[in-house]
Amino acid sequence: MELTTIGRRARAASRQLARADTARKNTALLALADGLLACQDEILRANAADVAQARERNVEAYFVDRLTLNLPRLQNMAQDVRAVAGLPDPIGEQFDHAALPNGLRLHKRRVPLGVLGVIYEARPNVTSDIAALALKSGNAVILRGGSDNLNSNKALVTVIHQALRQADLPADAVQLIEDTDRARILELLKLSDYVDLIIPRGGAALHKLCRDHSTIPVITGGMGINHIYVDATADQDKAAEVVFNAKVSKPTVCNALCTLLVHADIAATFLPRVARRLADKDVELRCDERALAILSPAYPLARLANDATDWDTEWLALILGVKVVDSLDEAIAFIQAHTMEHSDGICSQDPQAIARFVSEVDSSAVFVNASTRFNDGGQFGLGAEVAISTQRIHARGPMGLRELTSYKWVCEGDGHVRW
Amino acid sequence: MELTTIGRRARAASRQLARADTARKNTALLALADGLLACQDEILRANAADVAQARERNVEAYFVDRLTLNLPRLQNMAQDVRAVAGLPDPIGEQFDHAALPNGLRLHKRRVPLGVLGVIYEARPNVTSDIAALALKSGNAVILRGGSDNLNSNKALVTVIHQALRQADLPADAVQLIEDTDRARILELLKLSDYVDLIIPRGGAALHKLCRDHSTIPVITGGMGINHIYVDATADQDKAAEVVFNAKVSKPTVCNALCTLLVHADIAATFLPRVARRLADKDVELRCDERALAILSPAYPLARLANDATDWDTEWLALILGVKVVDSLDEAIAFIQAHTMEHSDGICSQDPQAIARFVSEVDSSAVFVNASTRFNDGGQFGLGAEVAISTQRIHARGPMGLRELTSYKWVCEGDGHVRW
Repeated sequence: MELTTIGRRARAASRQLARADTARKNTALLALADGLLACQDEILRANAADVAQARERNVEAYFVDRLTLNLPRLQNMAQDVRAVAGLPDPIGEQFDHAALPNGLRLHKRRVPLGVLGVIYEARPNVTSDIAALALKSGNAVILRGGSDNLNSNKALVTVIHQALRQADLPADAVQLIEDTDRARILELLKLSDYVDLIIPRGGAALHKLCRDHSTIPVITGGMGINHIYVDATADQDKAAEVVFNAKVSKPTVCNALCTLLVHADIAATFLPRVARRLADKDVELRCDERALAILSPAYPLARLANDATDWDTEWLALILGVKVVDSLDEAIAFIQAHTMEHSDGICSQDPQAIARFVSEVDSSAVFVNASTRFNDGGQFGLGAEVAISTQRIHARGPMGLRELTSYKWVCEGDGHVRW
Repeated sequence: MELTTIGRRARAASRQLARADTARKNTALLALADGLLACQDEILRANAADVAQARERNVEAYFVDRLTLNLPRLQNMAQDVRAVAGLPDPIGEQFDHAALPNGLRLHKRRVPLGVLGVIYEARPNVTSDIAALALKSGNAVILRGGSDNLNSNKALVTVIHQALRQADLPADAVQLIEDTDRARILELLKLSDYVDLIIPRGGAALHKLCRDHSTIPVITGGMGINHIYVDATADQDKAAEVVFNAKVSKPTVCNALCTLLVHADIAATFLPRVARRLADKDVELRCDERALAILSPAYPLARLANDATDWDTEWLALILGVKVVDSLDEAIAFIQAHTMEHSDGICSQDPQAIARFVSEVDSSAVFVNASTRFNDGGQFGLGAEVAISTQRIHARGPMGLRELTSYKWVCEGDGHVRW
């Protein structure tokens, strides 16, 4: 099918969806959750075909794992869809009411964005996840999944369509681009007449492709070079635990710690303490010269950092940059120079240092005596998460249902005119 | 100067500006207002050179008028800058406080967007206007004005720089691209490392250029194909006044009326009534066949509309499309097909019709028994206006100071970790 046809259908469906009440949308969501389990044979058979094809190409094991569905994973996907059904519906919310001196009554009303274009890679759970979030927020969505899970996605979208029809909602509200030619991505990025927002779910290359070629607004995020600065006044026990947690609890995710900055006054005591903790998980330390002088040779996994690259690397692994700084100013300047504005934090007991850090470090989330791993829609109480935005337009940090909406002004009068 | 140098300086200045307190920003604004008058000779001399060059090229009179500064206009510009100084400072506002069950304390804090890139045409007042709004909202700005008022803009930016220095703020917070080669616009649109938002202030061609070429988010807006639907239940006297006002009060602006839709049940009485009113201003009516049958020959300025083009034209002139519809559904479908989602309205006394119209017509502002001309930052109580956005991302409708901000999440704990 031509992409413009998909776009036109999505736009028409989005108008119906925008008017659908909460009960109808929840009916579709619960039907989808049920359908994922009722159609498990078809879905798992389709997924097995994808997995077999991937194995034939000798891809890496982690990739096969990401691609693979099984019953527990389908049950989780169904549970996630059910959870979205339980969230409050943001559409129709009225806010910013005002009565103007001339008698006009004004308010804003939350409306869906319209049509989302979501480009992602080999994770079949994203298909049901994004479909559920889009549906609940009244948005139509055009999905462009990876070629590696095309069979799985087709099977999942069949189930999604059944659920939409069961709730008398248009099946075109969720459409999959089945043509996996990369040229279709570029075409999607230019479909500004029909698509209101592009959400890339993938690595740096996909984000860059979208930013460089899209004529549609793009939400960028999902990548972080995250810092924790341990101030001279920090509670060192707690700080060591925060650093340990931020680095090792899930090192492959975008809110994991990349670089530890330690004030010179406490480096000689704090660094060995945190290094002993990190040694439990064999974390490699890429140190500046001062940190290395403190840690070497007692801590064998400490080595000299490559200044040209290491401070600008998102590790996604059990590696941590370590640097000694002489002041809060130096810490802030270093973070400003190297952060991707995802998650940065301070451990300190000094209210003035905390206030300055929170004010001057301008990341999507700034943490005080807490792990960067909390930067997450679920942890922040949004109930669901579409992406973690690191850009400055529209929404920053975790994006939930509300962040998939826009608003319109409603202005009511009684024959009011303006001369 | 290289654009990357301008960008780097803007980024550095934006960091200083983000930390500036309200008093310091207001000091700069008041110094700017004073400077516009104190330096009137230099500014008006520079402007006279621009005007003379424009006249030599035999441009149209309205263009020369837009370009021209004089003392009353400078006084207005100074007054506008003073008004911005009087507005509340959005930066640092804290909102959405939450205490999570695990004891983490969460809030959002309003921060500047960073660096704005504003591309505009021959209106020197935009220079001081945008500089003031950017400064108050803590954003640095790179200005790319039209070549036609380069001399005026240089003189104005000199005054702006003096004002910034008087308040100990970096002059690089407001920079003008003096090279008027059009290629510089394309370069600015790719400066995503240093610019956070592009705001075009100009016509459709400029907006399209920005959308097609920018790797930076673009606020589009400032254009409208606006409708008023007069329902069968409308108070016809009030409706005629609303239509008259929306069409004639300022026909060259983006919130002026383009197309009138009238319910068939009242068309025979309402159309002659509103046509007589519009005849006072010699408004030409482009009618569908049914409307023309009612209006012709009594109303000589009525003629048959060109279905292929007239319903999709932003008139910006004393021309009005007129069409008879048989139902609310037809009116809504017609508006959905032709609106640019700027300003659309209904005149009706029927709460159900009003509710459906407000729900299904999804424009940046929807009006009930009120003129579309109210879609304006000043009228809506924002105090100032950067643009009227017709896109769905970030902000819709009038954009004031708050709409030039982003936010960050601040998460405070006491050694909190996440496993």
